[in-house]
Amino acid sequence: MSDTGGASPAAPPFGDRLAAAVAARESQVVLGIDPDTTKLWPDAVEAMAESRERLVHALADAERSTGLVGGPNRDIRLQAAAAVLAHCLALVDAAGPACVAVKPQLAHFERLGFAGLLALEATVAHARAQDLLVIADAKRGDIASTATAYAQAWLGDVPTPFGRTTGLHADAMTLNPLLGADALEPFAAMARERGAGLFVLVRTSNPGAADLFDLELADGGPLWERLARLVAVTGTPGPESGLAEICAVTGATEPEHLARMRELMPHTVFLLPGIGAQGGSVEALAPAFAPGRAGGLVSASRSIADAHAAAGGPPGEAARAEAERLRAQAWAL
Amino acid sequence: MSDTGGASPAAPPFGDRLAAAVAARESQVVLGIDPDTTKLWPDAVEAMAESRERLVHALADAERSTGLVGGPNRDIRLQAAAAVLAHCLALVDAAGPACVAVKPQLAHFERLGFAGLLALEATVAHARAQDLLVIADAKRGDIASTATAYAQAWLGDVPTPFGRTTGLHADAMTLNPLLGADALEPFAAMARERGAGLFVLVRTSNPGAADLFDLELADGGPLWERLARLVAVTGTPGPESGLAEICAVTGATEPEHLARMRELMPHTVFLLPGIGAQGGSVEALAPAFAPGRAGGLVSASRSIADAHAAAGGPPGEAARAEAERLRAQAWAL
Repeated sequence: MSDTGGASPAAPPFGDRLAAAVAARESQVVLGIDPDTTKLWPDAVEAMAESRERLVHALADAERSTGLVGGPNRDIRLQAAAAVLAHCLALVDAAGPACVAVKPQLAHFERLGFAGLLALEATVAHARAQDLLVIADAKRGDIASTATAYAQAWLGDVPTPFGRTTGLHADAMTLNPLLGADALEPFAAMARERGAGLFVLVRTSNPGAADLFDLELADGGPLWERLARLVAVTGTPGPESGLAEICAVTGATEPEHLARMRELMPHTVFLLPGIGAQGGSVEALAPAFAPGRAGGLVSASRSIADAHAAAGGPPGEAARAEAERLRAQAWAL
Repeated sequence: MSDTGGASPAAPPFGDRLAAAVAARESQVVLGIDPDTTKLWPDAVEAMAESRERLVHALADAERSTGLVGGPNRDIRLQAAAAVLAHCLALVDAAGPACVAVKPQLAHFERLGFAGLLALEATVAHARAQDLLVIADAKRGDIASTATAYAQAWLGDVPTPFGRTTGLHADAMTLNPLLGADALEPFAAMARERGAGLFVLVRTSNPGAADLFDLELADGGPLWERLARLVAVTGTPGPESGLAEICAVTGATEPEHLARMRELMPHTVFLLPGIGAQGGSVEALAPAFAPGRAGGLVSASRSIADAHAAAGGPPGEAARAEAERLRAQAWAL
């Protein structure tokens, strides 16, 4: 993690930063990083074996002298985190060149506790060093005092008795809006201050999303339209790109909704999950790109990391090919 | 963190475990642990100074030998995490005896990165050693594959190439239901397997909660009633207590809703935040306790940790008195 990378007080608004990055890299692809501890790339994990052992020994020393570091599964968690990190670095090296951003899914790091957070921080630093934007897939949402702490954790700085320290300094994060506008405000204030982006859930791509997002409201329209209006009024279009810092997660498995979403959110960047593993297709996404190429980001995770299962060959080569295929396909729309 | 503490495959259903704990401790109070790095208890932090220095040095050695541990603000984050831990241990020691559970708010630990997770794990181990239940205030919610990872992180075990390891093994966690029933299912399966509980947001206590939770649906009733029905059908009452493992977060600042909530969720444990700092009052909560004392848990955070600001005296003594006052008040209802 770099002090100077990522969103910062001097940074332009997120929409402008994103549009510039999409143009420079000729890519709208977001590399989802969801490391499955049962499906890590074997070559990458093996290459990390020696430093993994060094790490475990060093941390065991630290625990003996302090009593603070660890717990009963410390060594397994550290070894697993080092393996996850090795996998993530190889994935970023392979697929990153075809992408504009990475989107680490925090759950897959959190489940290794403190060791997983170390792997996350090192993965983010590696992606940033390759000029990739970082979108923390957190889906956080809480009352205002807690929201402030989450915004510090993933986008900003943290005041402590020992001086200010940095959170992850992601360029953007995903949010769950269920708690209402006042719960979004601490995140929005932080995003404006630091040139960061917020991707608010408007309609997700899972089968059960219909349970709540599609509920019809008494005064007309489904719940997701209400969320879309909230996103539209909260964001401010960037002066160069016309794209706002408040963005939307818009499930690609319901492409018939995209035209309506664009109507409700003319200045909003859409993050389109559901390509590949979740069954969406790139061609149906054209309305997303109406405000320009950066208006629609195409996210893919398992379809890239697991590409070798279908394509054969080394995982890195298959991932590189699949990411480039997706990049060219979206860029041509 | 203990391997044997917390929810486990041999544990009875959560509702029964909770009812037994409430009876044994004669308390329905949940101690919210939301450590504010700008308002830590000075005495507790000072007492930790020496071990804090040892920790920083040990981890610096670990970073030198591996290159993995740290980042530019490592020392500040470690010192802050050690101070947060000292504060949390003192808070649990002071207020814990009047409580049945602790509820660490994950945001306040996450914002110190890997160091904050270490403090969280040590805080949880300390609470568990004092027979307090642990409710991870996570408000997570995501598509099924990610939900499985979050359930592993906070309630269960994690498969790795190096063997299984444990997550936090909390007794329960809070969830955001916006993504629908299929996104809750991996959590529910884990909860049933391990005797854990899930506290699903039905109506929160922040001012903006009305924005979405109170929206009237086309087929009648507000959104929160739909969430209440989802909670009621997903849970199974425990054979001894009649209380289900799927519980509800029900904002105490809207007490006029509680009778209706109890009607819709007759077997559900209500977690009632909003006492104290958020403006609720204990007397208005009586309907929550209809299925028995464990049917309503009273959560308090800042009103206990910051009690010395109003009451004067050492923070620990003020916290102990405020927690006991709240315990006696709720128990008498």
